Amino acid sequence: MTAFRSVNAASGEAFGEDLPVHGPDEVERACALAEAAFDTYRTADYELRARFLEAIADQILAIGDQLIETAMCESGLPRVRLEGERGRTIGQLRLFADVVRSGNWLRVQIDPALPDRAPVPRPDIRLRMIPLGPVAVFGASNFPLAFSTAGGDTASALAAGCPVVVKGHPAHPLTSMLVASAISSAATACGLPKGVFQHVAGPSHELGETLVRDSRISAVGFTGSRAGGLALLKIAQARHVPIPVYAEMSSTNPVLLLPEALKVRGEELGGQFVNSLTMGAGQFCTNPGLVIAISGDGLDAFTQAAIQAVLSAPAQVMLSRGICNAYVKQTASLTAHYALELLACSRDVGDATSAGSYLFRTTATQFLAHPDLACEVFGASSMMIVCTNEAEQVAVLNALEGQLTATMHMDAADQEMAQRLLPLLERKAGRILLNGWPTGVEVCSAMVHGGPFPATSDSRTTSVGSLAIERFLRPVSYQNFPAEMLVRELLDH
Amino acid sequence: MTAFRSVNAASGEAFGEDLPVHGPDEVERACALAEAAFDTYRTADYELRARFLEAIADQILAIGDQLIETAMCESGLPRVRLEGERGRTIGQLRLFADVVRSGNWLRVQIDPALPDRAPVPRPDIRLRMIPLGPVAVFGASNFPLAFSTAGGDTASALAAGCPVVVKGHPAHPLTSMLVASAISSAATACGLPKGVFQHVAGPSHELGETLVRDSRISAVGFTGSRAGGLALLKIAQARHVPIPVYAEMSSTNPVLLLPEALKVRGEELGGQFVNSLTMGAGQFCTNPGLVIAISGDGLDAFTQAAIQAVLSAPAQVMLSRGICNAYVKQTASLTAHYALELLACSRDVGDATSAGSYLFRTTATQFLAHPDLACEVFGASSMMIVCTNEAEQVAVLNALEGQLTATMHMDAADQEMAQRLLPLLERKAGRILLNGWPTGVEVCSAMVHGGPFPATSDSRTTSVGSLAIERFLRPVSYQNFPAEMLVRELLDH
Repeated sequence: MTAFRSVNAASGEAFGEDLPVHGPDEVERACALAEAAFDTYRTADYELRARFLEAIADQILAIGDQLIETAMCESGLPRVRLEGERGRTIGQLRLFADVVRSGNWLRVQIDPALPDRAPVPRPDIRLRMIPLGPVAVFGASNFPLAFSTAGGDTASALAAGCPVVVKGHPAHPLTSMLVASAISSAATACGLPKGVFQHVAGPSHELGETLVRDSRISAVGFTGSRAGGLALLKIAQARHVPIPVYAEMSSTNPVLLLPEALKVRGEELGGQFVNSLTMGAGQFCTNPGLVIAISGDGLDAFTQAAIQAVLSAPAQVMLSRGICNAYVKQTASLTAHYALELLACSRDVGDATSAGSYLFRTTATQFLAHPDLACEVFGASSMMIVCTNEAEQVAVLNALEGQLTATMHMDAADQEMAQRLLPLLERKAGRILLNGWPTGVEVCSAMVHGGPFPATSDSRTTSVGSLAIERFLRPVSYQNFPAEMLVRELLDH
Repeated sequence: MTAFRSVNAASGEAFGEDLPVHGPDEVERACALAEAAFDTYRTADYELRARFLEAIADQILAIGDQLIETAMCESGLPRVRLEGERGRTIGQLRLFADVVRSGNWLRVQIDPALPDRAPVPRPDIRLRMIPLGPVAVFGASNFPLAFSTAGGDTASALAAGCPVVVKGHPAHPLTSMLVASAISSAATACGLPKGVFQHVAGPSHELGETLVRDSRISAVGFTGSRAGGLALLKIAQARHVPIPVYAEMSSTNPVLLLPEALKVRGEELGGQFVNSLTMGAGQFCTNPGLVIAISGDGLDAFTQAAIQAVLSAPAQVMLSRGICNAYVKQTASLTAHYALELLACSRDVGDATSAGSYLFRTTATQFLAHPDLACEVFGASSMMIVCTNEAEQVAVLNALEGQLTATMHMDAADQEMAQRLLPLLERKAGRILLNGWPTGVEVCSAMVHGGPFPATSDSRTTSVGSLAIERFLRPVSYQNFPAEMLVRELLDH
């Protein structure tokens, strides 16, 4: 294939001009440029690096409404959401500019010489972080701006001093190209070499695989499906020099309704839950896919409110026909599953590119007997697991794989139970919420958007927030360096 | 096999009582206890954790001379070295007690709620690090105390709040058992559950493999051979839930002699070099296995001094008969290699358990043509690579794999060349030394004992120094938690 075209998410029809399909030659060229730019970029003044990130933000804004309209067309997401997402993308770039300026990421440690120490003197030793090298970034289809071409992975890798090669997502190729050229313009405006940012695109998996195999790539950022993430992980580990892969892959984001909270505000929680579930057609990594409760007062009220909300939830355009197909098949198979009860699905069932919401119910016993029920459904489908007691609730939690988030709705009278459950939730998830909903991920210094496998491939990291920069850094010690050989940040203060 | 015995390194003879060979049952029991102890240990007061580390240090000292004599017998290392190593082990445990008390490892981040933020309020979000879970530790034969049962991996994992299961090294089983019982006594004295530390032992690889496969193990610390580290890495990556492996494996620790330094003090450097090379029979991870120089003034003086020192270097007992055999074979094969010139070997050639030193020489051209020459030789063997110019020197450095250390000997007049080489050395090594020798690894906050693959399996970490604790931690966010649900360290200060 030598060309591909963008697809309108709502109509399912191809539109716009033919786009070039990149292959091994373009990967070779991009990696060679990235490698050549690495030392220049990492040793440039940090102020320049910060200004580059800000310039990217400005250039993205300068695209204007064309960016929003293109992303709306390609993703099917509404204007207000994409305008918000653009704000988040810009804010994230500016946050990382501040992170670069703060210098905290350098994690400077200075152990001065102790020439008189016995039995042997201690030499002067100083440590700082340096960037790993060129990074390959695979954007997500569900955040065509904030988790894509200039999203969190790109922003944090550039902040770390790593050149970036983005493999543009084929579900929004025009959006990706617009953003890529904004980044390239910013690089040119800042006098940085072209290789600090490169963009390759095409509809095949092979393109991304070629990129991850390239010996000049030092790390990989990925947001997407479990199968996709695991495939890249396998390639990265089989390389002559294995490299880290930060893949954010799969999460069902359990929500626990503790007894007193359920009793006091079951109905209210039911409505809030479906609101979180159906937002953005349920296409969030933090979508509440499991609700776990002990049967008791208020559970009926919760269930009835949730059923009513699901029934009247409109069908929504999904990100791509492929995603919509997969969702329809998965919900059909859940509907047919003998261990599940379909509580409700939207009256508005959608069409080939849009779909409604689903709510299923099962018991803890059935859930534990059918591990396939624990799989993520990408879309607005959720499952209530009704437990007969706390021991069952704990057994269900124990059976879950690693998660991005875990949530408890609780009242003061639930506090003892919540305290008992907390250590278990800490072991299962990267972020624990009380009395909130997991959708909505703040970009801040205390955010963990990560978690134990398979939520991510590396639980020691986050892909959102200031700490995301650390994924692309490694420590180096400088022993017995005279001042004139040290970089400025390692000098005595 | 149901029993094995310790071997005297010098005589090669088995001695002492029959030792039990552990298998899957003991691994199962150790992991079950470790898992059961995890929440208790991680949620215990940090002061208790710090006192536990100090109690281990005290208990190790309390073993007295029996520990030194046992380690001398099993490792063949001399008393003064092992007394020093015991001091290092004790110091390391006490350092990590201080690290625990400092609380820096928690990396607390607090983003307070912004209830009035538009368009949506920001919830209160707080982050801290928590431990990964039970850790499997594989000690090294070359540091029977400081990198073994109560070595850096164990100390840092315990400091992080992770229970530890040590697979005792079969080259020093009695030393390992003595230290293991010191740790267990310390746990009992501190009122900690037995599962915080477990010890399994036996001569087979299967034992360690079973341990790494156990689903309750959350991370692996390893110091040893490249083949051993890669085998464990493969097992860890193939698990249903992959886990991080921190394997410190292989390094040739290049030493560059810059022209002016060579001219001014070639002879002196030659003597110092062989001193670093032959220390501890060359059985250090940071042993200077490659010396790279541009031919010019002073190189002859360096070479002659090094030859004289090697000729008169005594044969030394090696850690085990297996290591000695491997060393003898590898040096014999290098001696026969047509691309190498044997400059000198010790007059004292040793016997079945001891061996002398070797110094080889080749040209940059030959070195680049024979990638096999770049392999680590475990023992007191080193290779000089003579370059005709700086471009060749850069080509040799570029051809090297990742290293624990890289060293430059330089004078003021070499500074420009050193500055040009530094970015390349940063990309190749975890620690860069000027005018020193790589053997001798300080335990301090600025130390990096790590480096790009295959020096280690994870260049983002260090196995020595305060930052080693971070290998066993992951971040968790707490969103919208009222004060009464927060741990103390996350409260407002």
